[in-house]
Amino acid sequence: MIAVLKPSATQQQMEHICQWIRAQGVEVHVSKGQYQTILGLIGDTSRIDMELLESLEIVESVKRISEPFKSANRKFHPDDTVVEITPDIKLGGGHFQIIAGPCSVESHDQIIGIAKSVSASGATMLRGGAFKPRTSPYDFQGLKAEGLELLLEAKKITGMPIVTEIMSVEDLPLFENVDVLQVGARNMQNFDLLKHLGETRKPILLKRGLANTLKELLMSAEYIMAGGNENVILCERGIRTFETYTRNTLDLSAVPMLRELTHLPIVVDPSHATGTARLVEPMALAAAAAGADGIMVEVHNDPIHALCDGAQSLTPAQFDSLAQKIFKVRRAVTE
Amino acid sequence: MIAVLKPSATQQQMEHICQWIRAQGVEVHVSKGQYQTILGLIGDTSRIDMELLESLEIVESVKRISEPFKSANRKFHPDDTVVEITPDIKLGGGHFQIIAGPCSVESHDQIIGIAKSVSASGATMLRGGAFKPRTSPYDFQGLKAEGLELLLEAKKITGMPIVTEIMSVEDLPLFENVDVLQVGARNMQNFDLLKHLGETRKPILLKRGLANTLKELLMSAEYIMAGGNENVILCERGIRTFETYTRNTLDLSAVPMLRELTHLPIVVDPSHATGTARLVEPMALAAAAAGADGIMVEVHNDPIHALCDGAQSLTPAQFDSLAQKIFKVRRAVTE
Amino acid sequence: MIAVLKPSATQQQMEHICQWIRAQGVEVHVSKGQYQTILGLIGDTSRIDMELLESLEIVESVKRISEPFKSANRKFHPDDTVVEITPDIKLGGGHFQIIAGPCSVESHDQIIGIAKSVSASGATMLRGGAFKPRTSPYDFQGLKAEGLELLLEAKKITGMPIVTEIMSVEDLPLFENVDVLQVGARNMQNFDLLKHLGETRKPILLKRGLANTLKELLMSAEYIMAGGNENVILCERGIRTFETYTRNTLDLSAVPMLRELTHLPIVVDPSHATGTARLVEPMALAAAAAGADGIMVEVHNDPIHALCDGAQSLTPAQFDSLAQKIFKVRRAVTE
Amino acid sequence: MIAVLKPSATQQQMEHICQWIRAQGVEVHVSKGQYQTILGLIGDTSRIDMELLESLEIVESVKRISEPFKSANRKFHPDDTVVEITPDIKLGGGHFQIIAGPCSVESHDQIIGIAKSVSASGATMLRGGAFKPRTSPYDFQGLKAEGLELLLEAKKITGMPIVTEIMSVEDLPLFENVDVLQVGARNMQNFDLLKHLGETRKPILLKRGLANTLKELLMSAEYIMAGGNENVILCERGIRTFETYTRNTLDLSAVPMLRELTHLPIVVDPSHATGTARLVEPMALAAAAAGADGIMVEVHNDPIHALCDGAQSLTPAQFDSLAQKIFKVRRAVTE
Repeated sequence: MIAVLKPSATQQQMEHICQWIRAQGVEVHVSKGQYQTILGLIGDTSRIDMELLESLEIVESVKRISEPFKSANRKFHPDDTVVEITPDIKLGGGHFQIIAGPCSVESHDQIIGIAKSVSASGATMLRGGAFKPRTSPYDFQGLKAEGLELLLEAKKITGMPIVTEIMSVEDLPLFENVDVLQVGARNMQNFDLLKHLGETRKPILLKRGLANTLKELLMSAEYIMAGGNENVILCERGIRTFETYTRNTLDLSAVPMLRELTHLPIVVDPSHATGTARLVEPMALAAAAAGADGIMVEVHNDPIHALCDGAQSLTPAQFDSLAQKIFKVRRAVTE
Repeated sequence: MIAVLKPSATQQQMEHICQWIRAQGVEVHVSKGQYQTILGLIGDTSRIDMELLESLEIVESVKRISEPFKSANRKFHPDDTVVEITPDIKLGGGHFQIIAGPCSVESHDQIIGIAKSVSASGATMLRGGAFKPRTSPYDFQGLKAEGLELLLEAKKITGMPIVTEIMSVEDLPLFENVDVLQVGARNMQNFDLLKHLGETRKPILLKRGLANTLKELLMSAEYIMAGGNENVILCERGIRTFETYTRNTLDLSAVPMLRELTHLPIVVDPSHATGTARLVEPMALAAAAAGADGIMVEVHNDPIHALCDGAQSLTPAQFDSLAQKIFKVRRAVTE
Repeated sequence: MIAVLKPSATQQQMEHICQWIRAQGVEVHVSKGQYQTILGLIGDTSRIDMELLESLEIVESVKRISEPFKSANRKFHPDDTVVEITPDIKLGGGHFQIIAGPCSVESHDQIIGIAKSVSASGATMLRGGAFKPRTSPYDFQGLKAEGLELLLEAKKITGMPIVTEIMSVEDLPLFENVDVLQVGARNMQNFDLLKHLGETRKPILLKRGLANTLKELLMSAEYIMAGGNENVILCERGIRTFETYTRNTLDLSAVPMLRELTHLPIVVDPSHATGTARLVEPMALAAAAAGADGIMVEVHNDPIHALCDGAQSLTPAQFDSLAQKIFKVRRAVTE
Repeated sequence: MIAVLKPSATQQQMEHICQWIRAQGVEVHVSKGQYQTILGLIGDTSRIDMELLESLEIVESVKRISEPFKSANRKFHPDDTVVEITPDIKLGGGHFQIIAGPCSVESHDQIIGIAKSVSASGATMLRGGAFKPRTSPYDFQGLKAEGLELLLEAKKITGMPIVTEIMSVEDLPLFENVDVLQVGARNMQNFDLLKHLGETRKPILLKRGLANTLKELLMSAEYIMAGGNENVILCERGIRTFETYTRNTLDLSAVPMLRELTHLPIVVDPSHATGTARLVEPMALAAAAAGADGIMVEVHNDPIHALCDGAQSLTPAQFDSLAQKIFKVRRAVTE
């Protein structure tokens, strides 16, 4: 961390501020120039309140040099993390997966049918919501425990590992046999939930919040990793902007940017980002071209009767066509 | 809800769609014009997936006419809600309160000292964080249970009701004697937490999320009210925009806009919105002029040594001056 | 346009409003339901002030059904527009072009050298700024007329058509031999400039403003087309969001969304959107995968000494590698 | 400007970069610490391309210390600028004015009638649009030259100075007798127009663009001031955010923030920001409480028949009530 003092700062004021910094266990290196004095803060500067320092009368400006995330930082962990979902299915470090399935689990026939179909098209992981976060308390909230059981049955039948959202710490015991626990965009900064997930060793699919920066996404990954769970998969799913034609704005530059900042795998969800089935194919292909490690797509056998998010679901036939194109684009950019 | 059909829609297609709507328990009123056919959906249209309807081949566009929030809606409850914090202290419907205190509870002397001071200046409710949501897992997370005890002691000594944040359902028993439970911006859509708070009868101070619309804020209030708890206080605390000089952008037009939409009381927090002590006074006065029912301000006896958010805290002397000005502005707009 | 009246509206009020609408040359079709009355406005509703109508006491809500853009609307012009840049080079309707060159024209040797190099790599159009819009009046403002002459010389030598920005109506005569006139993001709603460009028959590359919706982009295209100039090329170049790691957020979903809404060709500029050379390749490939009709990339032979935007420029070698990958991805999605 | 080098930087690389900086006329002060090397750039660093410097292989990060605006900067001009509109009417430095009038000038009777009425209520400057920037080419574009003549007639009759928008350099001669030239939000970065206005000595009311930061607003003021015209009045009129209940989000914290950064006067326009007449009063009062130097309000004698923006106009009676409240709030915060 670097603090630049105002030219008006007296020697005494400077010494007082250095003392305050050292009292927090951080070393200070003073560099007095002709026009300005610069303090270099060395050590664990995460203890220093940067905004407070900046607000002091004699301080011109403060800049954090090192990123506040550590476990997730590529600088300290140059190799890509490979998350092992099952012994056969890995994500990251060159391992690419398509995750597909309905928004909500609705019935035995629905989930088994879709699972078989997307598996035949090339999807290797099954998604489906049992606990659903809905903006309105009056909307369908998911089949809950029963939905989880149907997902586990689909897993048994098709062999596909399952990804499903957890909304509450209380429900954790129900997720014992779930392969990947998803943290939804609205819970990205539910720090209490993140801490509890850090105590498990389950792969966590962490969705970026609608208005969260990449730095905040990485800090939330850090919450999970600080507990000892390094199996974190990041997911870009669109951010909130002023544009209204699309539900959210899919920020695909997040893929190469996160690639630089972190070693964690990165998945893209074009279904929730766009909210419209017609836009899913071009954005899924763009995500593959941008270098995503995985793509998560909503598929429903009967979108018009889906209990939620039918508007953004592909039919199995549309998904089949998309999956082949995704593989083609991926070959074009990796071979 | 209104659905406009495309001119290309056939009679059969129209009948099919009407059937689908009626199957969801909603009546349809068809109005065939020379150029377009309009369907008026009547009844509990909250069951209809508006985006799905809009995505149908033959549908031109869909518009929701009635607001999706009911309990919070002023249309069905024209009178202002007055939340009774204590028999003496009420908020809303003409009852105006200043809530003040430190960001975090740090020690017995700190909280008691600040409480006495802000009370003498005119504050009627004491705020202070015991459980702190921090972006980084490495930052100070609050004194937790011990912090709550110190707050309760300050309450006993000064008689001021206390407002403090709850982050987890598991902690609920600890809040038994807390007067107002705050839901932080990052938990505004932690629906699991909202549902549990709906089962209590405690006043809830619900902060608007950084990137949440007023409609979403009201839908989150609706989650609490749907459980039977009507003691909800809304809090505007700044939204995320592209501007970087201020931490967030305080959306003061939310005050008169919410006033129209809902009967719930509205409080403004200029400290978190601006992130800078120097901006707190002008924005607190602006909030009073815009018609807020309450203003929540961070005050610290020693901002430079505060364990969090020192940059945005006023000193007791600054707060005293501000409180007198707030009362003056409020008189100017109400008398 | 649809207007829904409040249940409280009297017969007389309804008649008064219908009269007001008809006085503006628009027909009204009244549909009285049991619960609500709906007015269908038929004819040239672009004359009706929608916000005013919505603000009337007895009006519940108003919805515009038809898009306010006409010439640019795919509904009235289903076939893709193909803009003929030169007899040999076309853009749109399956014709794909790569536009490359430096941010600013700096010298004879620089522009000729870069032009030859990018042409050899597969670029078919040369970009380069002569008049530069800079946030600061103290920054380099371009070589102006001299820069245009150097571009025209590069065109003569390489045969590549040139694309360069016009900032002022007064400069129009200087652009006589320029092939494509670019309107920069900051001038997207400089309606005076747009009107003058509508009077020419030159191809116009219209960049989306940093905070402009797709609808506004199309309305600005409409300004040009209303003058009779149908040679408009739209350009997505990133929008302003809260994310700060990238300069802007490239909104690639704009490509398929615009494809639906309009018949005009769509180009993507990943250099200005990301502001960082390292992100240009993945985002250019993503743009090709999303279906863009062209990609515009900044290339500089000596980025470190470039007079502007050096940070986002590729070297000729990087561009050569990128161009081959772009062609590969395009084949993957079109063949 | 401060540049922090990566630990991996060699002595030779460091010397090379220092040479490059010095070649641009800027001195470098090197401070080698145990863990990092910091370069302090001293002199006219506005010549240095900060993003390019940051993109260099060996550079960790760069920070601009001094603001890029000079003439507008309060640091170099501590006293408030007072803009003299007429010998009697001043704005800034304690001089507060209410500017009122219709969105568009429509007729002789309309503008004279409104002018007399708002003057009687306490407004001291008359606003009215003759050249109108409209999103759609099919909307009413203003009475143009004829509108200016009507405004000048209203000025002759009432003695009120007039404020009206200029959209094109070509129209400048028509504005000779106009007192204050307004630059609209969409033209805030029309640098060609700003340069020409810098050559006049007319007071300029510069509106903040919908998606422009305060720094950009000040840089645009700088364009005008760099030409020698120091009579710049800044105007906050709402920014674009994700919230849709209000047309834009009025950023009132801009008032105290700009007050710190610059000596120029600051006016607030609540009419365009909110787009709704019902919200104008609370936001105008809030602006006065936040310390604005002036408030600009749209008033129309017949909002329902206004040719543009009728939805946001107050009636003369509503304005009269508002003006008295504004004076009351201003007294509360200044006396």
